[in-house]
Amino acid sequence: MVNETQQTGSGSSSSRSDGGSSSGSESSKDNSRCSTPVLDADRHERLREKMRRRQEAGDRWFSLEFFPPRTANAAVNLISRFDRMGAGGPLFIDVTWHPAGDPGSDKETSSMIIANTAVNYCGLETILHMTCCNQTKDDITGHLQKAKRLGLKNIMALRGDPAGEEWEEEVDGFNYAVDLVKHIRNEFDDYFDVCVAGYPKGHPEAESYEADLRHLKEKVFAGADFIITQLFFRPETFLKFMKDCQAIGITCPIIPGIFPIQGYHSLRQLVKLSKLEVPQEIKDVVEPIKDNDAAIRNYGVELAVSMCRELLDSGMVHGLHFYTLNREVATTEVLKRLGLWKEDPRRPLPWAVSAHPKRRVEDVRPIFWASRPKSYIYRTQEWDDFPNGRWGNSSSPAFGELKDYYLFYLKSKSPREELLKMWGEELTSEESVFEVFTCYITGEPNRNGYKVTCMPWNDDPLATETNLLKDQLEKVNRRGILTINSQPNINGKPSTDPIVGWGPSGGYVFQKAYLEFFTSSEIVTALLKVLKKYELRVNYHIVNVKGQNITNAPDLQPNAVTWGIFPGREIIQPTVVDPVSFLSWKDEAFALWIEQWAKLYEEESPSRMIIQYIHDNYYLVNLVDNDFPLENCLWQVVEDTFELLN
Amino acid sequence: MVNETQQTGSGSSSSRSDGGSSSGSESSKDNSRCSTPVLDADRHERLREKMRRRQEAGDRWFSLEFFPPRTANAAVNLISRFDRMGAGGPLFIDVTWHPAGDPGSDKETSSMIIANTAVNYCGLETILHMTCCNQTKDDITGHLQKAKRLGLKNIMALRGDPAGEEWEEEVDGFNYAVDLVKHIRNEFDDYFDVCVAGYPKGHPEAESYEADLRHLKEKVFAGADFIITQLFFRPETFLKFMKDCQAIGITCPIIPGIFPIQGYHSLRQLVKLSKLEVPQEIKDVVEPIKDNDAAIRNYGVELAVSMCRELLDSGMVHGLHFYTLNREVATTEVLKRLGLWKEDPRRPLPWAVSAHPKRRVEDVRPIFWASRPKSYIYRTQEWDDFPNGRWGNSSSPAFGELKDYYLFYLKSKSPREELLKMWGEELTSEESVFEVFTCYITGEPNRNGYKVTCMPWNDDPLATETNLLKDQLEKVNRRGILTINSQPNINGKPSTDPIVGWGPSGGYVFQKAYLEFFTSSEIVTALLKVLKKYELRVNYHIVNVKGQNITNAPDLQPNAVTWGIFPGREIIQPTVVDPVSFLSWKDEAFALWIEQWAKLYEEESPSRMIIQYIHDNYYLVNLVDNDFPLENCLWQVVEDTFELLN
Repeated sequence: MVNETQQTGSGSSSSRSDGGSSSGSESSKDNSRCSTPVLDADRHERLREKMRRRQEAGDRWFSLEFFPPRTANAAVNLISRFDRMGAGGPLFIDVTWHPAGDPGSDKETSSMIIANTAVNYCGLETILHMTCCNQTKDDITGHLQKAKRLGLKNIMALRGDPAGEEWEEEVDGFNYAVDLVKHIRNEFDDYFDVCVAGYPKGHPEAESYEADLRHLKEKVFAGADFIITQLFFRPETFLKFMKDCQAIGITCPIIPGIFPIQGYHSLRQLVKLSKLEVPQEIKDVVEPIKDNDAAIRNYGVELAVSMCRELLDSGMVHGLHFYTLNREVATTEVLKRLGLWKEDPRRPLPWAVSAHPKRRVEDVRPIFWASRPKSYIYRTQEWDDFPNGRWGNSSSPAFGELKDYYLFYLKSKSPREELLKMWGEELTSEESVFEVFTCYITGEPNRNGYKVTCMPWNDDPLATETNLLKDQLEKVNRRGILTINSQPNINGKPSTDPIVGWGPSGGYVFQKAYLEFFTSSEIVTALLKVLKKYELRVNYHIVNVKGQNITNAPDLQPNAVTWGIFPGREIIQPTVVDPVSFLSWKDEAFALWIEQWAKLYEEESPSRMIIQYIHDNYYLVNLVDNDFPLENCLWQVVEDTFELLN
Repeated sequence: MVNETQQTGSGSSSSRSDGGSSSGSESSKDNSRCSTPVLDADRHERLREKMRRRQEAGDRWFSLEFFPPRTANAAVNLISRFDRMGAGGPLFIDVTWHPAGDPGSDKETSSMIIANTAVNYCGLETILHMTCCNQTKDDITGHLQKAKRLGLKNIMALRGDPAGEEWEEEVDGFNYAVDLVKHIRNEFDDYFDVCVAGYPKGHPEAESYEADLRHLKEKVFAGADFIITQLFFRPETFLKFMKDCQAIGITCPIIPGIFPIQGYHSLRQLVKLSKLEVPQEIKDVVEPIKDNDAAIRNYGVELAVSMCRELLDSGMVHGLHFYTLNREVATTEVLKRLGLWKEDPRRPLPWAVSAHPKRRVEDVRPIFWASRPKSYIYRTQEWDDFPNGRWGNSSSPAFGELKDYYLFYLKSKSPREELLKMWGEELTSEESVFEVFTCYITGEPNRNGYKVTCMPWNDDPLATETNLLKDQLEKVNRRGILTINSQPNINGKPSTDPIVGWGPSGGYVFQKAYLEFFTSSEIVTALLKVLKKYELRVNYHIVNVKGQNITNAPDLQPNAVTWGIFPGREIIQPTVVDPVSFLSWKDEAFALWIEQWAKLYEEESPSRMIIQYIHDNYYLVNLVDNDFPLENCLWQVVEDTFELLN
């Protein structure tokens, strides 16, 4: 934990304070004075450095391979899977390159876009596979440039399968993976971390195992940083391969590719593709149970766990790479049994970070997008700088407009039919809308017996933290204070607190109470009268869809509402209530009524008109109680408002 | 307090969030994302805006005029007076232009350098007088450029006294103040706030009172922002003058110049210079008591108070300008009796801010210079950017070397003889040094009966806040832990707390406990063993004069040790323990042993050798207890160290 640097001699001192007064001015120019404290080394290191650090620390890790889905709906599901499996703490994921699927395009199912989504929207360290045969140099350079622009930092350089049955070398073309490695290093210098494939049994097309090892060595010496192997069935296959690699001078990390058998057909297909032979002892088990998926999967899990244990116990293996086949259960099970699945309730920051390199300093966001982090990332994707340390004053950069509700990574996970069951096939009044909000808060089924597990503003069930406020939230939603975001006040809980903690251990986290809701203009009128009593204590912003805006924010400054104090670090204040951003959020928050809810119903239908009425006439309100050490007064504010109305 | 902006229509909303995603990138470039919250509007406003704001708020204010001293010692005293009288809250001070004293030079007694010191080192809004007659255009432009470079923002434009007895207009020269006003506006546009002089009885050389009013109007129409008047003896003189000004269309603020009679001779001299006539009723009182300074001063105070009351009661006067004659007592007394002297124990930040415009965003400093803010400002004067929001990581800009201990604004207020009485005419051992430190802490007289009111590292008596730690500090200093800086831990006291509060009201301030001291290598060895027990809780930096450096700071990051949470604002963290700056501070802290203490004694004398020994062999240590909500553990750390030694 502690970085004790004992330095002798005055060299270190003078080298740090060199320059003197005359050069003070120059050196200050070179520095961005606002730099992020290294909260989470993972955000700043390259993949190869992370690997090295984990190995040096004796940590064991895993990674996960996915392939791009065929349909947009499958893409929505895959992104949810990234989020869920990301929670287990993979060191990276990788996305295969599907030459047949227009892999470098902007299609929602392309390799490029799936990898982009994993990095930017799911915050996962990601390797994009790329093949080179049958492609021009310009195509390849174009793909690499695009990958770089999207924030991808790692490439798995592969040859790919030849187009025809018989493959011929192209003169001056990309014939082998090594050509692609060289090309990446020539054109992009050290920008990418490059991974190459290793074949524990030798590549099926290689002249010999030894010749294949020599090819591998060429790839490494051309600039590859590490090796991921093809799957294999026996641990000794990998361990022998690793020793053979080391014997010929390959010293970079070699990561075994693990394939938990998940079904009879997928096993057969994979074996066909990889031209590997399944050992007889496995065939003997699988054949008799080939129609029993559960049995095969259980066997596959057992087999994988025992193989992984043997690999790890050898002391030669620090990380395991899993061929998931885009499935969750088997791999997760193996990882849990190995003790590698580490669902760390602690977060580096209270919100989900993006892994785009230009966002690695980002440590402040407006609270409004707390439940829609992907939308926030999308709307700020064009920014060149990200707030760090401070949000800054009202001259904040513009948010991109959100018109692309159809984008698969912004879409609800639930299909229309499910949404209708949750939010009502038919609405009869504003009160039936209040009921939907109330059911979402309480977790109780609605009058048709369906649980409301998401809302247009929250695609997930209530956060654990919000559960702390459940009783009060239920009460106010029933009466038409339609809450979409809230947090309790916190006066210095340990940063390791399982519910509200974040950041490195040994620190303390704080929050100001926050409440955000839609409500009618009648309630707003009463609320404004009540707020006069709380003038110095409560900051408020009240806005309707037309932009009528009422606030008592001093000088339109942001209000920090979440912050943390950590040992040996500057203060982190990851969420603010920013008056200017609120007007951008307002557009999105109001639009969600229409885009996600009203459009479920026929035009001109009463249900749709009710939602449209709310959209047109309600106000969006946020309240902050600045007195975080005292009891949250926001419930009293709401209580006073209802009293005034009665 | 509250800035309620009710905006109707969607115009405001769209103008704020305009651009959309395509222009998001451009607009983000335009913004410095880290901007300081407006903690103290005074740091951001121009003088004329401050005046307007005060007037609109119905606040009454005062300002103070000083002249440059004749000797370097007098300059040291004047700077202390700036600090003391600055505490009463003047809206500004002004420094007269002494054509005979090389006023634009770099001499420590020049008008330019005194005004520079007031702005930069005392943090006072300052007006520099400037006269124009008998000077070339280039001279004047040079002076103005220099004033701008030094951070001066306000000029009092005067004609000055002609060189000979008989004055003749120069063709194309600067003959009148109005020429200077025009020149400033031509050459420097709106950069400076410009003030001009008004003569309630008319300028003695003017053809008539009416002609003089017309000249004043010319000066205002040429671009002057406000008027300060010559002294006068009767309130009706000023009030008539003001009405006459308004009658001819002068609408800018007119500030009456108040001259509290402080002695018979100064009165006579001033009257001679200003060619004013003293009213008979004043002469009648003063003449009989002309040898009784105290009686004259008392009368002067009475007279000034009653005149000021009449002016303020007229409703036409919002601010009063005092001709102090560089004296403190009479003016302070008048201001206190008028209720204008406002010693606000609350500070915008925990340290004394500088008023240089380029430093107005500055809101973070290393804690090391807490007792030497002028030295800190001096050593960072070449910086172009100042830390704001965050200190930033270890690549902080270089500090200027401090070799100029002789500079009058860095020098001790006490002369050598006094220092010797406090710190010992003769030192016999390291223990006699421990005694000096202990006496400074306790406030008890030393063995020769003298109180130790300053130390090389602290030119003032112990801060009230440090008094909270007095008992513990005494104990450890007696045993050779020679403390030079410390602060208690604070877990959320109101920002209005009279001892530790700072920043706007309604907030909460926090601190981590801090202790900084010199100590022997023997104690350091034991301390390091003890610190292992406190590894995660206590951050430490230990360095000797040669730069041997031991620390457990993670990644050389700064540790925020003072911060404040305020309503509707981002978090302010004004002091940090920065590992890199500490090495620059170390040079200064060690050098002070020699420059301020050892050099009091003869070379080769035992006293000097003792100080030299400490300088060469002791370590400078700082400790931070990160667990600010718990009881400060640093005393236990020291206790454990002594236990280990025994």
